[in-house]
Amino acid sequence: MHIVDINCDMGESFGAYQIGSDEDILDFITSANIACGYHAGDPTTMRKTVQLALEKNVGLGVHPGLPDLVGFGRRNMQISPQEAYDLVVYQIGSLYAFAKSEGGTLQHVKPHGALFNMAAKSAPLSEAIAEAIYKVDPELIMFGLAGSELIKAGKKIGLRTASEVFSDRTYQEDGSLTSRREANALIKNHEAAVNQVIRMVKKGKVTSLQGTDISIQADTICIHGDGEHALEFAQYITKALKDAGILVRKISEIV
Amino acid sequence: MHIVDINCDMGESFGAYQIGSDEDILDFITSANIACGYHAGDPTTMRKTVQLALEKNVGLGVHPGLPDLVGFGRRNMQISPQEAYDLVVYQIGSLYAFAKSEGGTLQHVKPHGALFNMAAKSAPLSEAIAEAIYKVDPELIMFGLAGSELIKAGKKIGLRTASEVFSDRTYQEDGSLTSRREANALIKNHEAAVNQVIRMVKKGKVTSLQGTDISIQADTICIHGDGEHALEFAQYITKALKDAGILVRKISEIV
Amino acid sequence: MHIVDINCDMGESFGAYQIGSDEDILDFITSANIACGYHAGDPTTMRKTVQLALEKNVGLGVHPGLPDLVGFGRRNMQISPQEAYDLVVYQIGSLYAFAKSEGGTLQHVKPHGALFNMAAKSAPLSEAIAEAIYKVDPELIMFGLAGSELIKAGKKIGLRTASEVFSDRTYQEDGSLTSRREANALIKNHEAAVNQVIRMVKKGKVTSLQGTDISIQADTICIHGDGEHALEFAQYITKALKDAGILVRKISEIV
Amino acid sequence: MHIVDINCDMGESFGAYQIGSDEDILDFITSANIACGYHAGDPTTMRKTVQLALEKNVGLGVHPGLPDLVGFGRRNMQISPQEAYDLVVYQIGSLYAFAKSEGGTLQHVKPHGALFNMAAKSAPLSEAIAEAIYKVDPELIMFGLAGSELIKAGKKIGLRTASEVFSDRTYQEDGSLTSRREANALIKNHEAAVNQVIRMVKKGKVTSLQGTDISIQADTICIHGDGEHALEFAQYITKALKDAGILVRKISEIV
Repeated sequence: MHIVDINCDMGESFGAYQIGSDEDILDFITSANIACGYHAGDPTTMRKTVQLALEKNVGLGVHPGLPDLVGFGRRNMQISPQEAYDLVVYQIGSLYAFAKSEGGTLQHVKPHGALFNMAAKSAPLSEAIAEAIYKVDPELIMFGLAGSELIKAGKKIGLRTASEVFSDRTYQEDGSLTSRREANALIKNHEAAVNQVIRMVKKGKVTSLQGTDISIQADTICIHGDGEHALEFAQYITKALKDAGILVRKISEIV
Repeated sequence: MHIVDINCDMGESFGAYQIGSDEDILDFITSANIACGYHAGDPTTMRKTVQLALEKNVGLGVHPGLPDLVGFGRRNMQISPQEAYDLVVYQIGSLYAFAKSEGGTLQHVKPHGALFNMAAKSAPLSEAIAEAIYKVDPELIMFGLAGSELIKAGKKIGLRTASEVFSDRTYQEDGSLTSRREANALIKNHEAAVNQVIRMVKKGKVTSLQGTDISIQADTICIHGDGEHALEFAQYITKALKDAGILVRKISEIV
Repeated sequence: MHIVDINCDMGESFGAYQIGSDEDILDFITSANIACGYHAGDPTTMRKTVQLALEKNVGLGVHPGLPDLVGFGRRNMQISPQEAYDLVVYQIGSLYAFAKSEGGTLQHVKPHGALFNMAAKSAPLSEAIAEAIYKVDPELIMFGLAGSELIKAGKKIGLRTASEVFSDRTYQEDGSLTSRREANALIKNHEAAVNQVIRMVKKGKVTSLQGTDISIQADTICIHGDGEHALEFAQYITKALKDAGILVRKISEIV
Repeated sequence: MHIVDINCDMGESFGAYQIGSDEDILDFITSANIACGYHAGDPTTMRKTVQLALEKNVGLGVHPGLPDLVGFGRRNMQISPQEAYDLVVYQIGSLYAFAKSEGGTLQHVKPHGALFNMAAKSAPLSEAIAEAIYKVDPELIMFGLAGSELIKAGKKIGLRTASEVFSDRTYQEDGSLTSRREANALIKNHEAAVNQVIRMVKKGKVTSLQGTDISIQADTICIHGDGEHALEFAQYITKALKDAGILVRKISEIV
């Protein structure tokens, strides 16, 4: 039996600024990565997002980002591993309190944007993030790009990890994502995107842009909550996975 | 046997900006109110402050403030009770994670500056803050000005409360502090300040500026960590309380 | 010949967060109040908004707000007149530089949200704001609620002022706006809203909720750029004013 | 006749947080680099610093930094040239308004910290910064590390430039500063530091760590305003330059 989690970034509104269709998307995902006020999100948005996720039985995830609200946490910053550790501890705590006060528990942690990307390639950053998670709560599941330093660091310290794959991105022969600066980084056809994911989940394989088959671990699929077709694609992929006989369950029921 | 707690604001440095002599003051206090990044403090400062407080066996307290770094949380802001609730939940969580990751537990919550002062006179704000604390952890002790709405709201919801008195401030007949805008708001003589505190602890009485004696509950004494004589006064009051036969213990051993 | 300016808040997006349909609304207004990074806006948004306004020959206005991004500058903060002075100087300068670098000049200053409302009733705040404007550039026109302390302070220091009226708000007998907390604060019918404005412009009169006619100066009409009917109403009022024989011109051509 | 400017970072306090001994240091420098609220500084501090600098006839300089208050603008951030352009325009404007309202004029712009260092090695960033300065005011003088991309970009667009040297840093054979991570990056002996500077000013030469003499342009000397010996060194270098027959004048009288 094949089984996979679907995760999506949530709670990225800020004050009067609204982003995403969180309430609708939550119907189609199993794990929510909730912004914690650094790259997006504010306490009121966090509370509401936790409430919605709990209502819909979606796993609560911390989505810690860099302190760069105007850049939405997407710009690399030269932070030290110690700084990464500290800001991840802080942000886990902030969401923990909303989970606790609403009667829920945290399920996972997925670093956001530039922090996620920098950590993917940096063992020291990844180890600092893994340690932050482990020391706050060793039961938390750590999300990372399949094959990345984050996954290695998580396993090393003794955390459960979830290897993440992307439906709408192409892969390189070394297992990395094709850079968004390249012309063919994105898979825009919904059917092709979903077929790639189904093969990753069922066979543990993906065809690289170089034409070779590579092995890949697919515990969780990342989908996007903003963009005009976000909701439509969320519905589409959920149905397609089901039709392919793949169970969609929250990550805590998988790893 | 008389017993009292001494609390002080801690961890109010921010990045390259240093405030206070936290390490030294911690030797003379029993409860630390640690800033959580809203009016002061940052994740690195929070971690270091938690580490120091644990080393010195000082109770860990959350010190949530308004989102006003440039104003150090001292300017009233017209926030709703819901907003107060949300930002207190957030800040409790942020410090919780550092306490947890360093092997400690949170002891208390004391709102900071304008949030503390606004809540003192507002039942709705105080009830929102009390509910935030209670829902994250009903074991947390809530600090408030003796006789204030905070103390009432804390008792009402079922929290343990700590009534706070000031050594260096004069009192009005109605039990409120003389406004700092008044000429005789401050007691600058160390001996007079300490004598006022000792009487409050031993007799539950303080002489108001109007010359009448009023009743006051003194569970914890607030001292200041910045200012040129802060350390000197911390040493002085500690010794004076001891000489008066008053035990100084952290608030969790008292209420 | 009757003549009036139409102003609207602009440039309130922030990083990845988009608010308003600035580009479309700019076709129907004559003065743009551009956010300067305190309550909304960021340098990139400011530059783009200045470029758009210059293309469409709309007057450039500074829209200084309180340092409260999460509250969109809508929450009163107890700032001192000196703090108000300083943050208005700062924000005027920030927009000045974009106007200058794009080959334009600043036309006016309209405080935002809570700063506008607090100043309307406070002579000291209004005088501090007026002085800030005057000392940076005495040619700038100061916007304020008709009859407010802002208008008085502007005249007193020697600034040109623009008395602002609202099409969609009801008025009290004393010339103040009915509080939004009251049931009948808003005029939701577009025709009634526009008729009120036309009478204010042509006759200098408005009927208060108490049924009495009061005198009112209408140099500029405030319309809103967000909300689902914003663009539709902007088109409607522009046409209605024209049909009523009222010229719509930027404020620098009026006062 | 040899002539040189001495510049120092100023106005880096923030709200309740005080850094530096600005008032004292201003007696020994000729150009002040004033923080503009991004990496440090706030409107009130900016106004006071401008007032002090004008009183002491010190040149007013804009000191734009990255939007990283907690990191004091010292952490590299992957910003685009367009973002650099926008945030430099913004910050120039903010200080312009304080200069204008206090009756002064801006003299120069010196990027701060990580922005300065990133630009030193990046032509696109330097060109964006130079364009920002030029478009706001082509009379402004642009400061940059001697030999850096900033100086090249400034000259290319037609700005006057000031090549900056450091008294207390060692140089590499290629004219770059020895990285602070190296053991011998700093010259701690005051006499040796000043002798290096005097030779740079008089002879246009500095001995690299590799033992070779290299040519260097020394229009302005950077000294530090914080640190325990800052004031002492400021006095020392001023006297030593005078004793060596070097005139110390603000940069606008030199380039």
